[in-house]
Amino acid sequence: MFSKQKVILPGSDRVILFTNFMTEFSIAIHGGAGTILRADLTEEKEAAYREGLNQAISAGTSILKGGGKAADAVEMAVICLEDHPLFNAGKGSVFNAEGKHEMDASIMEGSGLQAGSVAQISGIRNPVALARLIMDKSEHVFLVGQGAMQFAESMKCKKEDDSYFYNEGRYQQWLEVKDTDKFKLDHSPSQLKDNKFGTVGAVALDVQGSMAAATSTGGMTNKRFGRIGDSPMIGIGNYANNNTCAVSCTGSGEFFIRGVVAYDLSCLMEYKEMSLEDACNEVIHQRLKKIGGDGGLIAVDGQGNIALTFNTEGMYRASQIGNNSAKISIYKD
Amino acid sequence: MFSKQKVILPGSDRVILFTNFMTEFSIAIHGGAGTILRADLTEEKEAAYREGLNQAISAGTSILKGGGKAADAVEMAVICLEDHPLFNAGKGSVFNAEGKHEMDASIMEGSGLQAGSVAQISGIRNPVALARLIMDKSEHVFLVGQGAMQFAESMKCKKEDDSYFYNEGRYQQWLEVKDTDKFKLDHSPSQLKDNKFGTVGAVALDVQGSMAAATSTGGMTNKRFGRIGDSPMIGIGNYANNNTCAVSCTGSGEFFIRGVVAYDLSCLMEYKEMSLEDACNEVIHQRLKKIGGDGGLIAVDGQGNIALTFNTEGMYRASQIGNNSAKISIYKD
Repeated sequence: MFSKQKVILPGSDRVILFTNFMTEFSIAIHGGAGTILRADLTEEKEAAYREGLNQAISAGTSILKGGGKAADAVEMAVICLEDHPLFNAGKGSVFNAEGKHEMDASIMEGSGLQAGSVAQISGIRNPVALARLIMDKSEHVFLVGQGAMQFAESMKCKKEDDSYFYNEGRYQQWLEVKDTDKFKLDHSPSQLKDNKFGTVGAVALDVQGSMAAATSTGGMTNKRFGRIGDSPMIGIGNYANNNTCAVSCTGSGEFFIRGVVAYDLSCLMEYKEMSLEDACNEVIHQRLKKIGGDGGLIAVDGQGNIALTFNTEGMYRASQIGNNSAKISIYKD
Repeated sequence: MFSKQKVILPGSDRVILFTNFMTEFSIAIHGGAGTILRADLTEEKEAAYREGLNQAISAGTSILKGGGKAADAVEMAVICLEDHPLFNAGKGSVFNAEGKHEMDASIMEGSGLQAGSVAQISGIRNPVALARLIMDKSEHVFLVGQGAMQFAESMKCKKEDDSYFYNEGRYQQWLEVKDTDKFKLDHSPSQLKDNKFGTVGAVALDVQGSMAAATSTGGMTNKRFGRIGDSPMIGIGNYANNNTCAVSCTGSGEFFIRGVVAYDLSCLMEYKEMSLEDACNEVIHQRLKKIGGDGGLIAVDGQGNIALTFNTEGMYRASQIGNNSAKISIYKD
């Protein structure tokens, strides 16, 4: 792709207009990682997931094709995933211990290291859009709970009532865990483990060479104690830096926090000069595994390379480089 | 220092007792960084700050001298600072926009990368002790708000009523900013900037060679929108890793988040093999400055080196290596 650019020559007032070779765009999205086995998904359900992923990557791609910003593309892709009932974010958020929906999201731009994130909000249709407003319109980075809701109010964020977020399947899921929890929480944390993987995210490189990352989650089913996972934490579940990469994570949040996973990837690239692929493998298959963490990430670098790396059975994912067709996958193979 | 250690020889049942050379301990603490000028502190006030720092470092040191764990030493040092009315944490916490006290804290152990953190809690005497309980007794890392308060309740954390946290000076400080805020918030963020620097922290290396870091804050005066700064964020305001360092930060929180400052220090040491001192200078004087951030950090490495690095006018700080006497400083010189 090409664009016209104005250049003022140093020491003169001559302005030259010339065409500038632009980067080919790249985009990747995920809808969570975990024990996702072919045997567990019906043909119809698999088709529905693929369709949801396809809608989201198409929405992001159309922005990038038009020369739009990476931040706009990842926000739009995540909004699509938040609006889809199958993914655990926005509309599809799971029920917490009080039978409510509590959501977290974050966004970061790689050009100026600008970031916004939000946690423990309810009734907001698109948490990622609120994170974007925090990044663009506030002097803060991270707003939480009732205070974040006040900010959302002042920004006139789109709200939805409980019925919008209600989903019979999620509700049954909660009832099952809720009952288990009553007498099993302290003894069988592994029973809850699979529920921690519901997250959506997007990363992109735009034709200007800028990167961005966005992540959103509806938390874990039957979540207690105002627990915050990795998704809204800059440098942990989400990070973007034009010198290295943009990355969005999904997995066992507590381990991602202790491993500072998203920024670790960036540092391996910046300080050890690893390739995107090698750094992703090191982070997910070595360092995260070593502390007992499960999950995955999607990442893009300044050359448009994409990595979709996970140490679980599967990860809902899609990617597209330039005008090539989108690749959509679910299982390991 | 020396200790007796049991060793079972491989392939036999012989047990050998031998004396093992142990690491000399190191500890450093801070009580916040910012525009702290000699002209602004009376002799009495300066003496009170020095006494507060002295009490805290003595408490930490006595644990390390007795062969205690770094995590216990940093927790105890921070508890002392939280109990002191002059520092913005625990008892000395500032007033938020609603005229209340909302506190954040975190702790991390370098041996197993275990971590606990808490944000937006009220009425808890020692937030760092709650962070420690989250690390030791829960399967989570980060608990926030009412949910965190429920966990504190279940752990029987020591509570205090509003009168314990009331301080006439802090209240006047709030009234001044509150009035300013009404019509100046959006136009003069710099007026609030100095209030962001109130944080306390401690880092230590114990005689077993393990490191830990703890950080605690009473937030910023007139804080709105449930804003969370860097203090409770693992990898941002607080981090410990036995392969590299333990670090606690203080400064303009939003910039520390965007710079992922604490883990950046660790990565510069691990991936670029920088010394503690060089890495601290790089992080605080180069990388943080570049994005416009002010503040400082205290850090210790596995050899017991200590760094007390800041790009502001001053930082309340103290340090001690082994049985040498403690050094207490406030200003830049």
